[in-house]
Amino acid sequence: MTDDLAVATSTDSAPRHLAPGDVGLVSPRDFVHAAPFTFKSGQTISGFTLRYETYGRPNATRDNAVLICHALSGDHHCAGWHSPNDKKPGWWNNLIGPGKAVDTNRFFVVCANVLGGCQGSTGPSSINPDTGRPYGIAFPFVTIRDMVRSQKMLLDHLGVTELHGVIGGSMGGMQALLFAIEYPHFTRRVLAMATTGRESAQAIAFNEVGRQAIMQDPAWNHGDYPREGGPRVGLAIARMMAHITYVSDASMDRKFGRKKKETAAGDAYTFDMQFEVESYLRHQGQSFINRFDANSYLYITRALDQFDLAQAYGSLEAAFAPVEADTLVVGFTSDWLFPPEQNRALALALLRAGRRASYAELSTDLGHDSFLLESEQLYTLVRGFLERDQLYTFDYAI
Amino acid sequence: MTDDLAVATSTDSAPRHLAPGDVGLVSPRDFVHAAPFTFKSGQTISGFTLRYETYGRPNATRDNAVLICHALSGDHHCAGWHSPNDKKPGWWNNLIGPGKAVDTNRFFVVCANVLGGCQGSTGPSSINPDTGRPYGIAFPFVTIRDMVRSQKMLLDHLGVTELHGVIGGSMGGMQALLFAIEYPHFTRRVLAMATTGRESAQAIAFNEVGRQAIMQDPAWNHGDYPREGGPRVGLAIARMMAHITYVSDASMDRKFGRKKKETAAGDAYTFDMQFEVESYLRHQGQSFINRFDANSYLYITRALDQFDLAQAYGSLEAAFAPVEADTLVVGFTSDWLFPPEQNRALALALLRAGRRASYAELSTDLGHDSFLLESEQLYTLVRGFLERDQLYTFDYAI
Repeated sequence: MTDDLAVATSTDSAPRHLAPGDVGLVSPRDFVHAAPFTFKSGQTISGFTLRYETYGRPNATRDNAVLICHALSGDHHCAGWHSPNDKKPGWWNNLIGPGKAVDTNRFFVVCANVLGGCQGSTGPSSINPDTGRPYGIAFPFVTIRDMVRSQKMLLDHLGVTELHGVIGGSMGGMQALLFAIEYPHFTRRVLAMATTGRESAQAIAFNEVGRQAIMQDPAWNHGDYPREGGPRVGLAIARMMAHITYVSDASMDRKFGRKKKETAAGDAYTFDMQFEVESYLRHQGQSFINRFDANSYLYITRALDQFDLAQAYGSLEAAFAPVEADTLVVGFTSDWLFPPEQNRALALALLRAGRRASYAELSTDLGHDSFLLESEQLYTLVRGFLERDQLYTFDYAI
Repeated sequence: MTDDLAVATSTDSAPRHLAPGDVGLVSPRDFVHAAPFTFKSGQTISGFTLRYETYGRPNATRDNAVLICHALSGDHHCAGWHSPNDKKPGWWNNLIGPGKAVDTNRFFVVCANVLGGCQGSTGPSSINPDTGRPYGIAFPFVTIRDMVRSQKMLLDHLGVTELHGVIGGSMGGMQALLFAIEYPHFTRRVLAMATTGRESAQAIAFNEVGRQAIMQDPAWNHGDYPREGGPRVGLAIARMMAHITYVSDASMDRKFGRKKKETAAGDAYTFDMQFEVESYLRHQGQSFINRFDANSYLYITRALDQFDLAQAYGSLEAAFAPVEADTLVVGFTSDWLFPPEQNRALALALLRAGRRASYAELSTDLGHDSFLLESEQLYTLVRGFLERDQLYTFDYAI
């Protein structure tokens, strides 16, 4: 998920957190599960914390919750501002707020940092109570199902009786689909975007190169590094490469083309930054290492690699057989990480399994991160899906 | 360029170098230019060596030469065998040989390792006569034009009076086009495949991540490292990533899919190799560092980044205005590094400039490296182009 290609920021002089449609100032909270939790791998931890935010209010029957699931490098802060001085709002602020596509006047919106993450939820950078030191790679292997199970515990804790909807892009879409599969009576609507039923060989390959960049950095030290240190070089390289896969050739060409830095000479007779795209990528790498833990990156990419609904349940149709939710899958034409075909295949398998499913394909040129784009067409889709009663049609390529 | 996706190896028991159509055992030679050479950057070296091979014989008028130009990680050994025990023949052995598409019974085939390379030609790993130590990053910056100029000197040395044809894929295609531009009277046919008139932002971005992986490896040491040492970790990571861009999602899925190593458990609860695609990529990285110099990788990727015909000559049409050669450009549908559009654009610009040009687009799913594939369709195209008298048609998507 990129930092800045698609997130809206207001440019007028009024305090941005007071703008109409904005959820305003928000504070994260911690859900502490103070009992053992056994991962799909069979490994157990004595308890965990999920850091989360909520926007809007639960209704009397507590069945108006919409869960937002984040992607690999995202977090629980998907809307509003932590402080009036923040440079940016939450990462899906354009979609979520009073009167917006995910309308916080109607819905109780919940978003948690995933288990295995590093933004406040328990993960490899958390202190292992058995040793008093960070878990490092002694942390249990995490799967998308573990992420989903722990978030279900959070929703139970919040008294949510039924999920009005669950929404996510990329890895968030995988979680959304698993909610419908694992908690069919609980999950009424699933909106999965820019996602897949299984990581392709190419996606695994990119993840593997990123992991190698981290693990071959001497500062990784088999996962044992101080909180402020660690394999910053390897993590930056992993992020720079991954970032290329989140955007598109067309969007990079439009934004940067072959433009050179102002300080650069006519020809690139240097290995220093010369082209603007180089400077942009290095910035992506550097800003990422200040907010993300390298071990979390290893764990979460491995969770992505392992995700394979057909393998886990016998077939895609078998995976989807228990689903009761209405499902909308959205693919983006320029997404080459989880291309439209992979999204369409999910909707078709849901239909073959006799479920209610829709597929929409949006023409964009922003690549994988298109699910974050400012698009009235996307907003209309999301709003319509959350607010209408039921779907029965297969809306191909609206 | 990949090591093994498309190169043919005979499986029968007869000595492979004696197979019909094979040029057999070959030996490289060195062309020594013992006079100063000034690069496009303005920097000068006191002389250079190009390592090259030839197959077939020059005719009496020495106008039957076909120059083969290699890609980023290729070399001068494009056909035949250095020893009967070699595991593999030259990298384009499927295309070049007696009776093959590039028929060594008719043509005098020449292929040189590029200036800046590391397979015998002068480059950053060569000894700087001024210091007695490897040049390292004191080597002059290399451009595609410098590569072409030095190869022209080799052809002059060989007494070649006129180039019957020049053929190359990827960076080799850039060199082929520049031959037609810089030496219009000398160059009769240009066959450029899987190439571009300028590196896109995405291609520069991938190159930059590779360079960062190398330069951030402490063993790089600002380019000053022993011949057997150097930034092997960084170079392997650069290669693994680049390799993904040479193939395609479809070909990786067909070859590996989500297949696991035989030793692997049912789920990937490890950061060790689990999927076959991981093992394959690591092998690509490891075999590359045993044959390639990291500084050469920096120089040659920078030469690629700088390549921009429109910028260098004012416009693509202006670049092609002097061309006298017949030109055939071949794009491959699954090439996402230098996609078909970029190849087609070259042929269209040649036609707009009033030159004789053809474009062919081959449907393949091997990605960028498709120019190396075993394909009768490709062989027919190449043979036809080299052997017919002239072209006047624009053959779109044959």
